[in-house]
Amino acid sequence: MSLIVQKYGGTSVADLERIKNVAHRVISTYEKENQVVVILSAMAGVTDGLISMAHGITNNPDPRELDVLLATGEQTTAALLAMMLTSMNYPAKSLMGHQAEVVTDRDYGNARILEIGAGRIKDLLQKGNIVVVAGFQGTDIKGNITTLGRGGSDTSAVAIAAALTADTCEIYTDVDGIYTADPNVCKKAQKLAYISYDEMLNMSSLGAKVLQIRSVGFAKKYNIPLHVRSSFSQEEGTMVVNEDSGMEQLVVSGVTHNKDEARITLKKVPDQPGIAAKIFTPIAEAGIIVDMIIQNTRAEGQTDLTFTVPKTAYKKALEIEKEVAARIGAEDVFGDDNIAKVSVIGVGMKNHSGVASVMFNTLSREGINIHMISTSEIRISCVIDEKYAELAVRVLHTAFGLDRDEEEK
Amino acid sequence: MSLIVQKYGGTSVADLERIKNVAHRVISTYEKENQVVVILSAMAGVTDGLISMAHGITNNPDPRELDVLLATGEQTTAALLAMMLTSMNYPAKSLMGHQAEVVTDRDYGNARILEIGAGRIKDLLQKGNIVVVAGFQGTDIKGNITTLGRGGSDTSAVAIAAALTADTCEIYTDVDGIYTADPNVCKKAQKLAYISYDEMLNMSSLGAKVLQIRSVGFAKKYNIPLHVRSSFSQEEGTMVVNEDSGMEQLVVSGVTHNKDEARITLKKVPDQPGIAAKIFTPIAEAGIIVDMIIQNTRAEGQTDLTFTVPKTAYKKALEIEKEVAARIGAEDVFGDDNIAKVSVIGVGMKNHSGVASVMFNTLSREGINIHMISTSEIRISCVIDEKYAELAVRVLHTAFGLDRDEEEK
Repeated sequence: MSLIVQKYGGTSVADLERIKNVAHRVISTYEKENQVVVILSAMAGVTDGLISMAHGITNNPDPRELDVLLATGEQTTAALLAMMLTSMNYPAKSLMGHQAEVVTDRDYGNARILEIGAGRIKDLLQKGNIVVVAGFQGTDIKGNITTLGRGGSDTSAVAIAAALTADTCEIYTDVDGIYTADPNVCKKAQKLAYISYDEMLNMSSLGAKVLQIRSVGFAKKYNIPLHVRSSFSQEEGTMVVNEDSGMEQLVVSGVTHNKDEARITLKKVPDQPGIAAKIFTPIAEAGIIVDMIIQNTRAEGQTDLTFTVPKTAYKKALEIEKEVAARIGAEDVFGDDNIAKVSVIGVGMKNHSGVASVMFNTLSREGINIHMISTSEIRISCVIDEKYAELAVRVLHTAFGLDRDEEEK
Repeated sequence: MSLIVQKYGGTSVADLERIKNVAHRVISTYEKENQVVVILSAMAGVTDGLISMAHGITNNPDPRELDVLLATGEQTTAALLAMMLTSMNYPAKSLMGHQAEVVTDRDYGNARILEIGAGRIKDLLQKGNIVVVAGFQGTDIKGNITTLGRGGSDTSAVAIAAALTADTCEIYTDVDGIYTADPNVCKKAQKLAYISYDEMLNMSSLGAKVLQIRSVGFAKKYNIPLHVRSSFSQEEGTMVVNEDSGMEQLVVSGVTHNKDEARITLKKVPDQPGIAAKIFTPIAEAGIIVDMIIQNTRAEGQTDLTFTVPKTAYKKALEIEKEVAARIGAEDVFGDDNIAKVSVIGVGMKNHSGVASVMFNTLSREGINIHMISTSEIRISCVIDEKYAELAVRVLHTAFGLDRDEEEK
């Protein structure tokens, strides 16, 4: 007997017909003598609908009350699935976040799980129940309802799997796994059988559509194997596992691209201690998240500083930096919001030199100019002109040997 | 400083515009230096919508899970009102049933309140908050979500008012008070300034549309004055109070009618001990509620027995009694579902003889035949042909001096 945690996303529970489909999957797992805990998202579109309802009241809804409102979405699907299962004569019980003892901090809208007192779940499992837990929601120690942020049900699932020391955590979604690149951009993209936690963590753009990044960090910390798969097919998906799990190590596992950022450059900044704080503190205070930062030292005690921000915050950030530049005596500020970030990711990179040079040469061969470069242990990212994004993905995909064999098509 | 509990029904919170209207009322009470606790129903139609969603799964949804589903309705309105209030810069916090410590038994769908640990509410009030409690819902001692049955938010409000020893409990609804008769039937009906708990309890048909009957029992037990009034006007409504509250005592306070019952008669039943049990046990086992029962002794150790059941259960009850009649040797079973029950209610009745004879004479003068009579200390009910129901209400209303003065019209 195994203990299996299954998480179903919003498109998998979008209506009663699909909830029935989920019920059949759950039952088939339960019938194989497994203990099953199901974590559900709200029906697709419901959370957005509730948010716009709140915005019908005010642009800045009270965060505590917004969480109370949003929590109804998962409460609904959890009740409906438990009802569906009992109507099919399977014992099932729904639990809300506070009932499942998902204890979080009080950062409404983006709460972090502090601990899970899995007593109630274990008790219900022991009595033979299928336990259906409303994802995305928790409670602080005072009993206030909190939510975990977009995609939070993934984190609910992984955290509950960790607390229960589950054998597997299956993440059911509307795609059938993690691909080496976005199949819409690169037709030769293939589904990966395995990917490491670290690679997933670095696949911000490709991965985030499939799995909340925070949930991957959680899975890594507690070493919970994740099985990302489609709720609409029986096919195996992608296993997200520890890199030591004996998986075949590719040098590069995937090529991702991201068009959501813009670039801002401050030219000829006086190169003094504390200057970076002067540049980035006003940005942080405005709640703008900076991704890449690059600094080139020039001659004469001056430096050029370039960084990226979300496109949505581009104008505001540019405004802020124009003020900053005047104050600190930088020569000029300019920006560009027609950029894209292309990354190659792979744990194999750690042991193989030359990945960077293959990447740069490949882009250069296509006449693609690189504006910024940043690297981590297992990732290399280049900022290029937006118009070349798709081309860059395809040529890098080929260059790193990721293309699917034609016969498989 | 007074502590005021206000309950708003589904039509009063039917959309954001109306919730804003509620917010203004709440604020105006709060601004007068009162502590305010607000209890809300779900938006009009939402509970029915959720029930039909559940029926899309099965005709017999699991009662525990149905309650989890239904509880989302009040969670939504409570969050929205608290959000509305905070957006207007008033401190407000929503509480769900479990957070407000509304502890009930585990009779899902019709749970009864066992106790209210009002600690959390008191704490929030003391900190200056307006407290918004989701009505209709509670929690059993194990933390399962329960609901209190249709109109349960009234009971939530009264129970919370009792637990807090509130000064007043205001019930805001879409009618402006309790009338001496249904104004749709009797144009001369007047709004009562006062009515006693006992009279409300006996006004099953008139009253139930305005106030859940159980909440009145609760208010009586804890002597909580209820103020039933409209959320759409500033007019005073009707006070439901203890009959010793010095209110002017009318002999008859109201005339009600009810067309929801049908009548079944067993003819020439052998008059033996235990025969009533044989007749009513199968009815009870089928979950059918019997209202009036009348037994006339005939000659020769035989008796005729007549009783009423809800019209919706008429056919089933008739079927059951045909079997019973055959078994116990009754001569015949027949029924009639074209009946109405007309009642006059008034605490003054206790001290005034002659109410019954005025009622019977008034009906007789109009040629209305009485099929059944039943009485309580403060109520007399007659079953008549359905077609005479409205006429009976009007002539009784006049006979007991309830008609509004023409000038007031």
